[in-house]
Amino acid sequence: MKMRAGIYGGLQTVTLGEVEKPEIKPGAILIKNIRSGICGTDLHAYNINGPEVGIDPGNQFGHEMSGVVDEVGEGVTGFKKGQKVFVNPVTFREPNEKLSVLQSCDMAGAFSEYVLVEKPVEGYNVFTLDEELSWDVAAMIEPISVALNGILLCQPKKGDKVVIYGGGIIGLCALACLKSMGIDDVIVTARNPFRSGKVGEMGGILCNTKETDVPSFVMDRWGKSKGNNGEDTWNADFVLDCAGYPGAFEEMLKYARVDSHIGIIALGTSEEKLVENWLCYKACSIHGSFAYTPAVNKQVIDMVTVHQETFLPIATATYGLSEIAEAFAAANDSKKQVKVLIDHSR
Amino acid sequence: MKMRAGIYGGLQTVTLGEVEKPEIKPGAILIKNIRSGICGTDLHAYNINGPEVGIDPGNQFGHEMSGVVDEVGEGVTGFKKGQKVFVNPVTFREPNEKLSVLQSCDMAGAFSEYVLVEKPVEGYNVFTLDEELSWDVAAMIEPISVALNGILLCQPKKGDKVVIYGGGIIGLCALACLKSMGIDDVIVTARNPFRSGKVGEMGGILCNTKETDVPSFVMDRWGKSKGNNGEDTWNADFVLDCAGYPGAFEEMLKYARVDSHIGIIALGTSEEKLVENWLCYKACSIHGSFAYTPAVNKQVIDMVTVHQETFLPIATATYGLSEIAEAFAAANDSKKQVKVLIDHSR
Repeated sequence: MKMRAGIYGGLQTVTLGEVEKPEIKPGAILIKNIRSGICGTDLHAYNINGPEVGIDPGNQFGHEMSGVVDEVGEGVTGFKKGQKVFVNPVTFREPNEKLSVLQSCDMAGAFSEYVLVEKPVEGYNVFTLDEELSWDVAAMIEPISVALNGILLCQPKKGDKVVIYGGGIIGLCALACLKSMGIDDVIVTARNPFRSGKVGEMGGILCNTKETDVPSFVMDRWGKSKGNNGEDTWNADFVLDCAGYPGAFEEMLKYARVDSHIGIIALGTSEEKLVENWLCYKACSIHGSFAYTPAVNKQVIDMVTVHQETFLPIATATYGLSEIAEAFAAANDSKKQVKVLIDHSR
Repeated sequence: MKMRAGIYGGLQTVTLGEVEKPEIKPGAILIKNIRSGICGTDLHAYNINGPEVGIDPGNQFGHEMSGVVDEVGEGVTGFKKGQKVFVNPVTFREPNEKLSVLQSCDMAGAFSEYVLVEKPVEGYNVFTLDEELSWDVAAMIEPISVALNGILLCQPKKGDKVVIYGGGIIGLCALACLKSMGIDDVIVTARNPFRSGKVGEMGGILCNTKETDVPSFVMDRWGKSKGNNGEDTWNADFVLDCAGYPGAFEEMLKYARVDSHIGIIALGTSEEKLVENWLCYKACSIHGSFAYTPAVNKQVIDMVTVHQETFLPIATATYGLSEIAEAFAAANDSKKQVKVLIDHSR
């Protein structure tokens, strides 16, 4: 049996193809995808290089998905046909010697009609969703988990002041998480008018980096403090790097308040300078965030079930699976889109 | 009234002098120092530059001290003459516009016969000590607090494997803290035979950096793991930098295990390279440690009260206050001494 699947064809090429439909087997469940999302990693493959992010030409790909249980294999308990679920693309496969975590994740098959989950475990690789949860939000549980993982490392608490570098998908997911957690003082940097508009629409404080540098904006807004070395610092409790552009890390470290946190979510590739005593005088912690744990997925699911309207503005367009080429072309235009979703019914 | 005091006289010069004895006043207590310690900062002033660490020529100095309450000012409750105490040099003075935290600390007067604590608060700036606690250990509560503060940032737990870069005073204090916490797998790097011997005497695993590089030693001892980017990592749960030599930070980051911590205690001054995605692939946290909080002092006092014998090997010599010049000359020889203490009765 064949099924429809989005196939990565190399640079600027994603097509609708056909691949073998996975067969149900004992101890597994087959998920029928309903809504999935195009990730920055998918766009990296589309624009720059697939293999370096684990996406090889000719393969199915995608890793942001939500769907329903379609078949339940022999011996599986706790799952039933029609159940609405999120699949964690990091834990859904057994560790594979040949594939790194990222490669396994990136070829999960979110753009395919079906995915097979072997050894499904509720709350580990498959998560039951509330029937009332919007499919658009369900499809974004994965990127929201990426954002929340970075936030949690920074030990957030009510009343915190937060700066988010980058008003892209992850930056806006982080903003929505913080708002849902009751953290309202959030500055988000953005540059293009469409994404700048989203920051305001979602209740963030826009720092337009076409008009101002970030440190001046943050210090004008929230005042200054003194570091243990006599230097001026801003008053953010934590800063999230969701952009990764060169120099941003050094800027965050330079202006970090004493006893604050820096959460790195973006996979920045520039060489940045760090002097140990800067970090000590500030008693500052820097956290590298990698993906998320099942516990974080669970926290996201609880959060979006209550606050789905906070997250909906991030989903800016939905294309049918048959229009996957158009969907990628659209997702590639950051001046008009944030998150582009795929509707598997079309 | 005059009192005896160690006076910083500039490079290679510390003399016994006389200064005004502080007068008791309402709301204050006067502490008579019994035992104090020579810190690396004091040696920096002695060997390199006093003013850059807040120690000016002609002034009293020192900040590691323990003593007894000698006079209790009008209106003070909860303290009585003869009470054995530790004074936190960071919180013992009101914040002063003219002095940074470090400057205030460094001129606390640990090498003077008496110090005045205004607005004494038990558990904040003055801490009652057990009568059975050795004065030698009491005098080291301050550097032990520096070490424990860095350890606590790394979220230590039973069974952890720890690498300490540097078998100096802070490195050995960290080793003793870890042993007291029931964390036994601790590698300590050292180079000179005297300090190497201390590592073994105190139950640490010596990595002699004259004979081996640190990553090879750690991976030979505890095996290797794979990072999310396919790289070899060591198996330490956390690493403490208590040395700060150039390149050490980059080495720690390169070999850090996934989900591990790096605690920076040493005030390293070299420019080190950091690429954000290295940190993310490792989901590693880096913590800059600055001094300690009163809560950390309290935890140290509880720890040393039970485990004082674990800490005693760090104190390698005691000189009378009248011999402070000799004490500094001795403390300066890392091949023969670790912590040199001052006995105020002589």
